[in-house]
Amino acid sequence: MKEVDYLALSETVIERIKNGAFLTVKAGDALNTMTIGWATIGFAWGNPTLMVMVRKSRHTFTIMENAADFTVTFPLTNMQKEINLCGTKSGRDLDKFQAANLKIRPARKVISPIIDTPGLHIECTIVYKAAIDPASLVKGHEKLYPRKDYHTLYFGEIQEWYKTN
Amino acid sequence: MKEVDYLALSETVIERIKNGAFLTVKAGDALNTMTIGWATIGFAWGNPTLMVMVRKSRHTFTIMENAADFTVTFPLTNMQKEINLCGTKSGRDLDKFQAANLKIRPARKVISPIIDTPGLHIECTIVYKAAIDPASLVKGHEKLYPRKDYHTLYFGEIQEWYKTN
Repeated sequence: MKEVDYLALSETVIERIKNGAFLTVKAGDALNTMTIGWATIGFAWGNPTLMVMVRKSRHTFTIMENAADFTVTFPLTNMQKEINLCGTKSGRDLDKFQAANLKIRPARKVISPIIDTPGLHIECTIVYKAAIDPASLVKGHEKLYPRKDYHTLYFGEIQEWYKTN
Repeated sequence: MKEVDYLALSETVIERIKNGAFLTVKAGDALNTMTIGWATIGFAWGNPTLMVMVRKSRHTFTIMENAADFTVTFPLTNMQKEINLCGTKSGRDLDKFQAANLKIRPARKVISPIIDTPGLHIECTIVYKAAIDPASLVKGHEKLYPRKDYHTLYFGEIQEWYKTN
């Protein structure tokens, strides 16, 4: 992996995460995708690492808890409609892939697929996860959890990243 | 905070963290700095966020546990000697600032000082911390903890970043 590629990847993550990306995960027959707007990227445990956060109220959370890996797709075209849908609807209530007309494509190195769209794709294996302990959150942050559905932090070791057109 | 500045900051962190940076923390009268080689940067809880990791065996850990904030300084000159010293010696055994001839300078927005050297400085308030639960670590990572001195993860909300010459 060339350093310059990793730098470009990181810049893309930092630049685009606030606009939304697709977090896609598969465990057994269960599959879902959801919109994320927060993530951190860097090095941890000696490897390129991407951290994502999923509230325990989410359908995706149940799948993440049983999964070995996940993918994140940053769309390179305007997919605001799909991003909005996957950020507001639950995979419990509808097939989001069908509803948003999203197709999947097998990943290169992990079980979870990627979203088949022009984008930057990151494939990660889960190396550590931690449910947020509200007692350790700084005081002001409680307001982000009015329903007490705290995030679980998932640390993914980045196995592969690439662009598709 | 201009987006482009944050992008440049993130790129610097990603590019330089493996070469070592100074994590400096002050709580009450206790002050220490140590070398870190791992970190992640991005957005979390709606804000620019830097995550650092400190093993519980470290003198710095004791101070971090009582601190409200920390700073990270990425040196822009060759400080390999100082980086090595601050990564191998403990503040319990010697005054690292004296031993490495490091001076400090007050930070702009936090209590912990910065290292007074040409560098990129990041000032963070601690918004969340979590001791690693070894039961949630992927199997292979146990080898990184032969003495079971697991890291605690500290999430800092970035308050300020700047270069000094």
